[in-house]
Amino acid sequence: MLMTSPLPADDALVAPLAGTSADAAPAQRYRAVRAYSAALVEGLSDADATVQSMDDASPAKWHLAHTAWFFEEFVLAGARPAYRSVDARYRYLFNSYYESVGPRHPRPRRGLLTRPSLADVLRYRAAVDAAMEKLLAGPLPGATLRLIELGLQHEMQHQELLLTDLLHLFAQNPLRPAYREAPDPPPAAPAPPLAWIGHAGGRCRIGADTGADAKDGAGASGFAFDSEGPRHEVLLRPFRLAARPVSNAEWSEFIADGGYRRPTLWLADGWKAVQAEGWTAPLYWEDEAGEAYREDAGAPRAMTLFGVQALDPAAPVAHLSYFEADAYARWAGKRLPTEFEWEIAARDLPVRGNFADSGALRPLAAPQPSGGVPGQMYGDVWEWTASPFVAYPGFRPAGGAVGEYNGKFMCNQFVLRGGSCATPTGHLRPSYRNFFYPQQRWQFAGLRLAEDAS
Amino acid sequence: MLMTSPLPADDALVAPLAGTSADAAPAQRYRAVRAYSAALVEGLSDADATVQSMDDASPAKWHLAHTAWFFEEFVLAGARPAYRSVDARYRYLFNSYYESVGPRHPRPRRGLLTRPSLADVLRYRAAVDAAMEKLLAGPLPGATLRLIELGLQHEMQHQELLLTDLLHLFAQNPLRPAYREAPDPPPAAPAPPLAWIGHAGGRCRIGADTGADAKDGAGASGFAFDSEGPRHEVLLRPFRLAARPVSNAEWSEFIADGGYRRPTLWLADGWKAVQAEGWTAPLYWEDEAGEAYREDAGAPRAMTLFGVQALDPAAPVAHLSYFEADAYARWAGKRLPTEFEWEIAARDLPVRGNFADSGALRPLAAPQPSGGVPGQMYGDVWEWTASPFVAYPGFRPAGGAVGEYNGKFMCNQFVLRGGSCATPTGHLRPSYRNFFYPQQRWQFAGLRLAEDAS
Amino acid sequence: MLMTSPLPADDALVAPLAGTSADAAPAQRYRAVRAYSAALVEGLSDADATVQSMDDASPAKWHLAHTAWFFEEFVLAGARPAYRSVDARYRYLFNSYYESVGPRHPRPRRGLLTRPSLADVLRYRAAVDAAMEKLLAGPLPGATLRLIELGLQHEMQHQELLLTDLLHLFAQNPLRPAYREAPDPPPAAPAPPLAWIGHAGGRCRIGADTGADAKDGAGASGFAFDSEGPRHEVLLRPFRLAARPVSNAEWSEFIADGGYRRPTLWLADGWKAVQAEGWTAPLYWEDEAGEAYREDAGAPRAMTLFGVQALDPAAPVAHLSYFEADAYARWAGKRLPTEFEWEIAARDLPVRGNFADSGALRPLAAPQPSGGVPGQMYGDVWEWTASPFVAYPGFRPAGGAVGEYNGKFMCNQFVLRGGSCATPTGHLRPSYRNFFYPQQRWQFAGLRLAEDAS
Amino acid sequence: MLMTSPLPADDALVAPLAGTSADAAPAQRYRAVRAYSAALVEGLSDADATVQSMDDASPAKWHLAHTAWFFEEFVLAGARPAYRSVDARYRYLFNSYYESVGPRHPRPRRGLLTRPSLADVLRYRAAVDAAMEKLLAGPLPGATLRLIELGLQHEMQHQELLLTDLLHLFAQNPLRPAYREAPDPPPAAPAPPLAWIGHAGGRCRIGADTGADAKDGAGASGFAFDSEGPRHEVLLRPFRLAARPVSNAEWSEFIADGGYRRPTLWLADGWKAVQAEGWTAPLYWEDEAGEAYREDAGAPRAMTLFGVQALDPAAPVAHLSYFEADAYARWAGKRLPTEFEWEIAARDLPVRGNFADSGALRPLAAPQPSGGVPGQMYGDVWEWTASPFVAYPGFRPAGGAVGEYNGKFMCNQFVLRGGSCATPTGHLRPSYRNFFYPQQRWQFAGLRLAEDAS
Repeated sequence: MLMTSPLPADDALVAPLAGTSADAAPAQRYRAVRAYSAALVEGLSDADATVQSMDDASPAKWHLAHTAWFFEEFVLAGARPAYRSVDARYRYLFNSYYESVGPRHPRPRRGLLTRPSLADVLRYRAAVDAAMEKLLAGPLPGATLRLIELGLQHEMQHQELLLTDLLHLFAQNPLRPAYREAPDPPPAAPAPPLAWIGHAGGRCRIGADTGADAKDGAGASGFAFDSEGPRHEVLLRPFRLAARPVSNAEWSEFIADGGYRRPTLWLADGWKAVQAEGWTAPLYWEDEAGEAYREDAGAPRAMTLFGVQALDPAAPVAHLSYFEADAYARWAGKRLPTEFEWEIAARDLPVRGNFADSGALRPLAAPQPSGGVPGQMYGDVWEWTASPFVAYPGFRPAGGAVGEYNGKFMCNQFVLRGGSCATPTGHLRPSYRNFFYPQQRWQFAGLRLAEDAS
Repeated sequence: MLMTSPLPADDALVAPLAGTSADAAPAQRYRAVRAYSAALVEGLSDADATVQSMDDASPAKWHLAHTAWFFEEFVLAGARPAYRSVDARYRYLFNSYYESVGPRHPRPRRGLLTRPSLADVLRYRAAVDAAMEKLLAGPLPGATLRLIELGLQHEMQHQELLLTDLLHLFAQNPLRPAYREAPDPPPAAPAPPLAWIGHAGGRCRIGADTGADAKDGAGASGFAFDSEGPRHEVLLRPFRLAARPVSNAEWSEFIADGGYRRPTLWLADGWKAVQAEGWTAPLYWEDEAGEAYREDAGAPRAMTLFGVQALDPAAPVAHLSYFEADAYARWAGKRLPTEFEWEIAARDLPVRGNFADSGALRPLAAPQPSGGVPGQMYGDVWEWTASPFVAYPGFRPAGGAVGEYNGKFMCNQFVLRGGSCATPTGHLRPSYRNFFYPQQRWQFAGLRLAEDAS
Repeated sequence: MLMTSPLPADDALVAPLAGTSADAAPAQRYRAVRAYSAALVEGLSDADATVQSMDDASPAKWHLAHTAWFFEEFVLAGARPAYRSVDARYRYLFNSYYESVGPRHPRPRRGLLTRPSLADVLRYRAAVDAAMEKLLAGPLPGATLRLIELGLQHEMQHQELLLTDLLHLFAQNPLRPAYREAPDPPPAAPAPPLAWIGHAGGRCRIGADTGADAKDGAGASGFAFDSEGPRHEVLLRPFRLAARPVSNAEWSEFIADGGYRRPTLWLADGWKAVQAEGWTAPLYWEDEAGEAYREDAGAPRAMTLFGVQALDPAAPVAHLSYFEADAYARWAGKRLPTEFEWEIAARDLPVRGNFADSGALRPLAAPQPSGGVPGQMYGDVWEWTASPFVAYPGFRPAGGAVGEYNGKFMCNQFVLRGGSCATPTGHLRPSYRNFFYPQQRWQFAGLRLAEDAS
Repeated sequence: MLMTSPLPADDALVAPLAGTSADAAPAQRYRAVRAYSAALVEGLSDADATVQSMDDASPAKWHLAHTAWFFEEFVLAGARPAYRSVDARYRYLFNSYYESVGPRHPRPRRGLLTRPSLADVLRYRAAVDAAMEKLLAGPLPGATLRLIELGLQHEMQHQELLLTDLLHLFAQNPLRPAYREAPDPPPAAPAPPLAWIGHAGGRCRIGADTGADAKDGAGASGFAFDSEGPRHEVLLRPFRLAARPVSNAEWSEFIADGGYRRPTLWLADGWKAVQAEGWTAPLYWEDEAGEAYREDAGAPRAMTLFGVQALDPAAPVAHLSYFEADAYARWAGKRLPTEFEWEIAARDLPVRGNFADSGALRPLAAPQPSGGVPGQMYGDVWEWTASPFVAYPGFRPAGGAVGEYNGKFMCNQFVLRGGSCATPTGHLRPSYRNFFYPQQRWQFAGLRLAEDAS
């Protein structure tokens, strides 16, 4: 047996972010978030961390380096005028898309960088951490603390991408490597019947308080990206929300009913994608023989972070495009919720769920929620909403290069809500707006149905 | 001189739709709309009407045939069970995108059909008209009348596309043919200074009444596409709207200030388009030598339906993508209006303006509007709004194949409002939602600025 | 019935080149060749003559104009310094690929020129003809006569392309228009059994005498393109050549034996083309239902210049790529002849066969040739040879822009020999080297087998 | 300093193939060739050996594995029926293009295989070597010995590709890593003036004796690939060959004279490549600032296996496409030699030169050769010839899957002769025919001029 073995699940990976709430001291929080990134690449080879499997994905090594660069560029360079970058060339190599900062290595070529090695990059991170520790040892103005928090939130986003990009890479390999040792399969149990939670609608407050005043009161209101605000009111009509996401078993029914063969179920652009890409099932689904999953293929299997596994019929379906989520809702005679509906329903729930540092690293089935509230709003799968990612009324991007963070992507993407099994604990909040293009499928993205309450 | 001469502007083309208001008797209205289509191709050669200059455009001949097919497929086939299509193969050739109807000739291959000829297609239209006249001679149920009205509205949309597609075709020809004889240039006068019209916002009614009740009362409420409803309320914050669209002169300032060279002015997808397509000015702009217009190129000229002409600095700028409109607004420190803001501001204005049958066939400058209302809301140029084209709350597409009319395009497109100099009179209304992809430029699309009223 | 009817075959199209042998007086020959071009477009609409169905093809109108331009550019401009082009812009529009002449309209955009019209182009040709008649009325130096002959040979090449491009265009139209009225089908008779003609090989003279001396003696040696010389010797091993081309019936056996499914029969680049293009039969073959022809589809039909017709099993197979011809030869346990073998076998045969002006306009079956010579070496189908199109030893292109005629294409193309049913009479000779890329299929190209004589 | 250091040149890499002549005992020869492959990847990281920089290139790891697979598939599987592959899945992963063997991992996806790791692949090679040692310990039939020799020749081809693919990979990295420590620069000296060596031509024997008889006498005649035969006679005209390849200094003159700007110097397909790819100099040339080299950029630098280095003006120019070589010859008023001319001139020279195991790993300048023979015919740079890669008369590929070795590539490629500074010693012979597509540039390919002897 020649192959490198996957790492067993261990304590290093489980719940390392326990101390990372916004209440933690900045230095403690910095260490915890940064350590989690390093934990994620344990067991990966230099090659695993280097290869880029598609333009949308980045190498694990690049995620590690880019998040270090972010602290160099936006925190250290500003707060420590004498600070010298570990390697001046990294400013070019590890800038992602900040036009204000200068030219950068083209995204589709990130996987051609076999040097610096993974070990070099870990040394780079250590050097940045040392400089940051010095900075964090002293008193810091609020603006710097806010940039550090932005850097940590940014790193948590890349932790999720690191996992989903790695899954995509391993899925391209006919050997189907496992990132971690497969856990015991969950006990077989059907998903609870689909219940519906009603909401009266009306005039509702939406979004985070990201105004000028809020900035000084960040401790109270917590962190939010600029695109989550300004807080504002919207008018909602009465609606009902499904008590759980759509399950793998339900998705199999959609397939069996010709869901991927009937153009009238799809948006025009979605049907083009179905035909051009030959979609017949969610990304990563396959049959017993490892071939693309088709209508008559029986129990679905799928590539996961544990290699190819049988899918739990009761668990939320994942790795869907917006087009698929939208088509399913049409087939079911329902619709996707708007992001406002989702937020109103989630606002008062605790931000708990199956996040990455639980160690499950895949969507899990859950029992019927009690108390008349929807279940699994956080974790498991990101939920596609019907809402294009656009500016809230009065939106103004932050000044300087960090203003390129969200605003320039407000076109052709749709909002997803709630986080997934690859999102680190402490990263989510009710107002959190994730966004992807409607054809993208490599995230842990699923859906929850909604309907008008007549 | 070997070239075919352009047709002089004549009475046939000017204001032929005077009798086409929704109040006209159906048969009279049918004749007027259909006759205008025929008038639009007068002076075109068989070849002019056959060639397709890009995938987004269709041959003039195809527009003529497809709009006839629409009446065959959706009106005659339903109302006259014994009706036989003029040519059974046309059902395949001239279906545009109706999946429910069956397979169809691929869109990018429309320009390969040198047969049937333009004359054949005009004969096809005459045969359809004869059948329609018989139908219109008798009493008709409301549902049929509504389908006929849909067919006429549909034909008016294609009249506009026929003009914009033809302009695109002629612009590809180094000989730059003129569709019509050039009019005298307008008197040179600067555009009026940019004035702003305020609006208090608040709870506002939006959209057309397209509900089940409305259908029986179509005579009263007038026609609307399904996507214009249901009528519903939205919350608006106080805003101000520019009293006129952005002018060519103002656009030249944007160019001179490096507008097409500064990535931070652009959405990320927009900047990709600028680089990939080499945009340096609106579509059709050129310099004295017929080369692509650039910053230092002096007074802009542009291909028009009258051949290449000097642009009137005071006239609204046209042939912009959403990306360009959005970048300009950011450069100007303003923003695009939402479609709701536009509709509220336009709702009580008369639907009058520089429409196609005025014969101008290009955006015109206009004096400062009086009375504290915005000018040129209708006609001249479609105005890009900040609103993605998505469903209004409670939206349900119409049943049957006509349900594919709008709903399946509710993805990745942006709403434009107000009509243009290529839109036929009688086609517009305050709730009218046009939509195009953000990179598309061949329509008469411009912009009007908005800002928050603090 | 709305469609334009195809033209009946008539005297205008049959054998109009009877007086065009190289012995004819230049003026008489000029008129005959030019008139044949005009005859070829009789019955075509303006649209038929304008549309370009693929990058490799050109509109009929373009062929007519480009061949006129050739006389303007290479004959009139040189011989008549005061000559003024009919339209200065045509120099840009109708230059094909002569870099020395200047920039030109991009080839893939030839079909966007709806103006000048077909009628305009015919007027352009008439104006050039008038100038040429004046020139031909006087005594002319040998160099000018040779350029005129080059222009006529050039025009004959475009006559063939006009026909094959038109067939390609009409084949894209689901209505499958006929260019000419279908003739009676040939009497059904099997092809004669495949006989073989041996040749001893040895030291053989190849090519035309295109040396400096030859130029003054053009009347004696006849015209040849520069690439047909210099005449030189090659060593050939003994070989045998099939007495006729491969027939449609034989090709059907290849298909039935999995010819298009077995990668080991194909060149690597050929197999890539089979897979990328989905080839399952020669271009234009289809089944009864008009779908792509497949192994079990029964008697093949094909698009022809007479619309879709049943194929004569005994006639030579046509519309093959080099890749297909090569794969067939491998399947048959034979090989393609080299161009030298072909030329040696054809050298002493009369240049007679089924050429375009016979009016057949499709490959025809022929009886077993007598006299121990191969049959159908000229006409019917071009025969792919195993020879890449490269320079003969000592080759030097002609001076000036006409030197771009052949030499710059000596890369990645293969030589075809013998002419086809679309080649005008008087254009062929034993040394004639046609060339196309190995993936191209829209010419009347077939194959003849060869084998080593052990 | 974070970067991994390049390996110093050492004894392991220099001349390890001294004992690999065809006279060596098979086991000794096997060990030497296989060991050299391993020596080539010393100092490479797992990532360096995994990434694929373009479709034409393969990862170093893949070269190592594929050459092991070759022995498993073609030697061990045949000679040892009980042999079990080290990993059955490798048969799929490491088959290159043998259709007869079965489906295989798509070439453009070779770089996605981060597993098996480089260490895994080296273990795979060790397991194959152990099995081969057992086989080689016993007496072997001639057919097996010939397959082993084929496997070793195959491995030597991949040794060269491993080096050129690695150079391409490192050239994509803005850090420009060095594969080996840079040697001292050579003493500056101009190239000797260009001398010419004449040859009388006539009837010449070409190629290797690859006939059926030859197979039993392989020990005497030495190894040759099937495409090098059959031996046959050709007729050559008198010619002259340059005494050395074209130098970097001479190439700079071509650039300075507008060589990359003048379309009439180029084949039509070559000029398309120049424009599409933006070629302004040979691959890897750059200016002082690391930008693409242009006419006025001064002394050229280039990426090499030692990182970016100043180019020796006297050394042969390398990394040219056929198109560039052909254009240069036209510019110089000369031509490329045919492969026959090259072979006749090289046939009686000792096969000595600057090969890979000299350790130079780049083309070197050489003094004027003495004795009226051309210099540097072997080693330094492959020399593009004017000859398309086609079958010699009577060519028959070997039976079975190894028959796919050369024959199926006989289309659209050109022959190169003589080996390069990346070719291992012992691999070349006068009849050796290498071949690449005319647009490919990443090999150490240059040119030598020829001309007709009048």
